[in-house]
Amino acid sequence: MKVPKGFLFSTAQGSFKYQDRDDLALIYAPEGAVSAGVFTQNVFQAAPVLVAKKHISQCNLINAILINAGQANACTGEKGIQDCEETLRLLSKTLEISPEFILPASTGVIGEFFDLKKWEKAILELRENLGKVDVGKVARAIMTTDKYPKLVSKCLTLDNKEVHLLGLAKGAGMIAPNMATMLGFILCDAEVDRSWWQSCLVEAVETSFNRICVDGDTSTNDTVLALSSGKVKGNFCEDDLYRLKKAVKEICFELARLIVQDGEGASKIIKLTIKKAKTRQDARNIATTIATSPLVKTAFFGEDPNWGRIVAALGRSNASFDPQKIRLFFGDIEVFGCGVAKLEDIDVWLQGYMQKKELDLVIDLGAGEEEYFILFSDLTFDYVKLNGSYRS
Amino acid sequence: MKVPKGFLFSTAQGSFKYQDRDDLALIYAPEGAVSAGVFTQNVFQAAPVLVAKKHISQCNLINAILINAGQANACTGEKGIQDCEETLRLLSKTLEISPEFILPASTGVIGEFFDLKKWEKAILELRENLGKVDVGKVARAIMTTDKYPKLVSKCLTLDNKEVHLLGLAKGAGMIAPNMATMLGFILCDAEVDRSWWQSCLVEAVETSFNRICVDGDTSTNDTVLALSSGKVKGNFCEDDLYRLKKAVKEICFELARLIVQDGEGASKIIKLTIKKAKTRQDARNIATTIATSPLVKTAFFGEDPNWGRIVAALGRSNASFDPQKIRLFFGDIEVFGCGVAKLEDIDVWLQGYMQKKELDLVIDLGAGEEEYFILFSDLTFDYVKLNGSYRS
Repeated sequence: MKVPKGFLFSTAQGSFKYQDRDDLALIYAPEGAVSAGVFTQNVFQAAPVLVAKKHISQCNLINAILINAGQANACTGEKGIQDCEETLRLLSKTLEISPEFILPASTGVIGEFFDLKKWEKAILELRENLGKVDVGKVARAIMTTDKYPKLVSKCLTLDNKEVHLLGLAKGAGMIAPNMATMLGFILCDAEVDRSWWQSCLVEAVETSFNRICVDGDTSTNDTVLALSSGKVKGNFCEDDLYRLKKAVKEICFELARLIVQDGEGASKIIKLTIKKAKTRQDARNIATTIATSPLVKTAFFGEDPNWGRIVAALGRSNASFDPQKIRLFFGDIEVFGCGVAKLEDIDVWLQGYMQKKELDLVIDLGAGEEEYFILFSDLTFDYVKLNGSYRS
Repeated sequence: MKVPKGFLFSTAQGSFKYQDRDDLALIYAPEGAVSAGVFTQNVFQAAPVLVAKKHISQCNLINAILINAGQANACTGEKGIQDCEETLRLLSKTLEISPEFILPASTGVIGEFFDLKKWEKAILELRENLGKVDVGKVARAIMTTDKYPKLVSKCLTLDNKEVHLLGLAKGAGMIAPNMATMLGFILCDAEVDRSWWQSCLVEAVETSFNRICVDGDTSTNDTVLALSSGKVKGNFCEDDLYRLKKAVKEICFELARLIVQDGEGASKIIKLTIKKAKTRQDARNIATTIATSPLVKTAFFGEDPNWGRIVAALGRSNASFDPQKIRLFFGDIEVFGCGVAKLEDIDVWLQGYMQKKELDLVIDLGAGEEEYFILFSDLTFDYVKLNGSYRS
């Protein structure tokens, strides 16, 4: 895996919550990078979200992203913001940069205050390890209930030059559309315009992190940050930028898919596509209603082609359609249409299909031209186990 | 338990889905009863819902309610309606009444067609057992995943006469506000005006079955029917009617509470009250968002006072409030206010409280004068177990 030029990495053990692994990570661009960010839409925004938003709007170039796992620093009021700023000050001193050039990101339990003594120690360790650490360790250090790290890379040639892209993310609960509750970081080395880079990230998030659903909850800390170091300079034409944007979208989509695959307790990924909706809002409402229905999600866990639950969720979605025109497909097999079951012995047809790890569900509304998709996971014993005992 | 005058009961084994118990029930008012009904708001309305709505609007007096468990007769198209009408015709022949005077209600798996041969046999048995069966057997026969039957009764004196009220219901999954996915039947023997009886039922449903949430799903078959035989005649004054309405509300509320208590896999009931909301819609949105959040529900199962998840759900509810003014209480203990945690060691304060079976959660928005409550259950291993293997 080739890493974009212009970045160094580090991790350290802060012991904020986890005692047996690194839980603090640094992405460092010594010569600065063009930045873009997309943040949670929750009314309660965590301190790091507020601080990162401020810094990203004020600074042309960003030097570092500082990420901790285990404590969200959310619902911590003014003190939470001061604590966040203090951690940036500690890092800025040791790196000899201004604190405004650092973006913070936190994930973990809501409402707890940072222990700044632990931070002081951990940031010294972070400084010591700088450049000695592979980016894979960063992907591991930002995990909470994730079962595995999520890393994706891409290389493309633009204007005869090799450009590298790297994405890393953590899930795995509180994942809902609009936007996925997670941290995601996209690194690139192409020289790009800042506003183009921001619009590129926004577009990519819309068809990736905003299209996944594990449990329908949206966290206070959702953050996707993108840095491009500009180390690879070129005369990029419109087609080059189109391909670069496409690559960013692919990286984000693959990270999003990995988050659902590793959703808390998830055993399956279901891609649900709503076709021929009257409005995009309708298609989206239907997709979200079905993707968050516990009855639908447990049926997939049970490998039960219980389409009645899907139809029942569709029926309470407040979307506009004619029930007689609905067609519902599992893969290529139509199971419901013209208001009735299409197969007499559905289990014979679908038993094998239901055992797949990745399934396709299509609903044709026959009402218009709009289309929308969402990726969601099933609801399992392990989800309840993880979340019935998350803090302890 | 005294049963309202003017009703006879029967049950039979139709073997529609369950092979070891009665699954067909009859409530019979030989001399007719004034009827009222409230039905699902799902776009896909089951055949019995469509037929019951028609009959209730056309007939002044109703003679019978015919209820089957195991098959919902939903998403069964025109044939489903014909099948439903045929079952009423079979019953009407043996009872020598017109089929329009019978209201059907079905609960169970969606999409399957009735086996009319089984119905023919079962309806003969129903006729044979008529009057020999206690209403408790009816409450048992209408169960699906319920662990126990739900029966509530009340007796009150109006105009010096004894009036009896009886309520029975079945849950237990697909329970969501607006309205609860369940069947409920209220019987009474007071002489009442038909339109007053309907408005009385609508009011009672709004503060009972519409305020409960097990999993946020709304079924295709939700039905609450109320019959009053008029056997107890009196000159009921306004105060009498007020007390009768209050009793109907109490019956409905207690049945609703029983449904949540017996919610699929439920181990706890949480009553969430939203206070001082700007609008009723806001209060309702917040209540529903929190009551359906899998993270909140699993935390209660884990007896974890993880208020951060409640605040996070509040923050994505699209309601209008100032995050700084929010106050969150578990019982009488304020855990969150002015944007920060109110207790340093929350587990010390709340460990005992979290072990209760019925908990009170209060959110004060400090934004207006509106108030709303909802009853919800936790999300447990047993919910996943039940719904991961419901059909098999």
